[in-house]
Amino acid sequence: MPAFNQLEAIEIVLVSPRNPLNIGAAARAMANFGFERLTVVAPFDPHWQEARSAVGAEDLLQNATRAERLADAVADCTLVLGTGSLGRRAPEQPVVPLPGAVALVREELARGGRVALVFGPEKHGLTRDDLVHCHRLIEIPTHPRQPSMNLGQAVAVCLYEFSTRLFAPAGQPQSEQAEAARSNSAQIELLAAVIEQTMDAVHYSPAAMRTANRRDVALMLRRLALGQRDARRILGFFRRILHRLAN
Amino acid sequence: MPAFNQLEAIEIVLVSPRNPLNIGAAARAMANFGFERLTVVAPFDPHWQEARSAVGAEDLLQNATRAERLADAVADCTLVLGTGSLGRRAPEQPVVPLPGAVALVREELARGGRVALVFGPEKHGLTRDDLVHCHRLIEIPTHPRQPSMNLGQAVAVCLYEFSTRLFAPAGQPQSEQAEAARSNSAQIELLAAVIEQTMDAVHYSPAAMRTANRRDVALMLRRLALGQRDARRILGFFRRILHRLAN
Repeated sequence: MPAFNQLEAIEIVLVSPRNPLNIGAAARAMANFGFERLTVVAPFDPHWQEARSAVGAEDLLQNATRAERLADAVADCTLVLGTGSLGRRAPEQPVVPLPGAVALVREELARGGRVALVFGPEKHGLTRDDLVHCHRLIEIPTHPRQPSMNLGQAVAVCLYEFSTRLFAPAGQPQSEQAEAARSNSAQIELLAAVIEQTMDAVHYSPAAMRTANRRDVALMLRRLALGQRDARRILGFFRRILHRLAN
Repeated sequence: MPAFNQLEAIEIVLVSPRNPLNIGAAARAMANFGFERLTVVAPFDPHWQEARSAVGAEDLLQNATRAERLADAVADCTLVLGTGSLGRRAPEQPVVPLPGAVALVREELARGGRVALVFGPEKHGLTRDDLVHCHRLIEIPTHPRQPSMNLGQAVAVCLYEFSTRLFAPAGQPQSEQAEAARSNSAQIELLAAVIEQTMDAVHYSPAAMRTANRRDVALMLRRLALGQRDARRILGFFRRILHRLAN
């Protein structure tokens, strides 16, 4: 029996699901595997209402949170994992096969973090703007001829893997000593904003590169997986730079 | 990558599915995980027709076999595994949790056998008469509050487990794909020097803290394990800041 009670530090986030049946299917899989915290980002209103009145997972859907932006949904999460078929895009984050992601999540929970598992819309998956919020991408190992999974099935497979293997005692090399607490998404957003201000102040980006450079900063800050003290330190440093530039 | 070509010795059998969407969902999961042989037992005719005309898994459904009895569907199989929530019935076969069933199937294939994975109808699961054909029952470990899974999701979870773990060399830690090349010590030293120059230029450190802050920067840069591109990018940014501060 998995340690279901520890799963409440894992948030399941659906970004703009189009099919109300899929919201219900995700909630059903969550109930099957003992997950409780569901956030739906920018749902289409009639579908949201329809899903919440479906049978089988009522409590979970009644308690589900609705967010307008992915940034809000993952604000208090310290490890944000994007999912979905990556298609032709070469992602900028490390891509981890689902079985290998278990260790990542286990470590994050051990150091007291909160984890978000983010699923994109059915057809296109997570957008470039969504991916900016992700520290890592999870890939379910599928066949090259039909790599793209149905949303409800992808959620079920991910949650099965985590609920079955996260807390298995089996001879796992319980890795590295506990690291420092990670920064959550809101702290990283703040830091990114101050760095962008600094970039503007020193005219770092030619106008044509401004958006791309912002995205690069956002991605890099997540790739670095900053601890909270480091993030505070860097923030203070850039505020000092900004102050100096203004005087 | 799993050894997809060895999966053709595994038959997926759906017994009397009631919802045509579930036939399609099972076929989709089979395509995702590289399984090819589907048999549907005693389908309701209109649903069978409808499922075969669905998008996404056409070949597999066109080649699917229809059988009138489960006995016929599993006739040439040497290991028949029933699935589904067992509810209140005390089954007469041994019940194996899904992760533990992988070894059973692996042994059977190694000795040249054929394996059937049998899924019952949505509401009631396999009947007593169906269960008679099963050597073992597989149980997906679910939460006691909501043990019963959606059929398409249950198929996806089982096939994920088998395709991922049947042919993986035992005990192998499925590792992350190679991340970007790390910066070497010389590159980090250079970056640290430029950051220290910036600290001096903005009077970040009181005199008494200067040495401690240098050490903190050096330690932090190593803790972050910067990739080479990130290191170059940060270096360029700080040079730009220094340039601006000097003018």
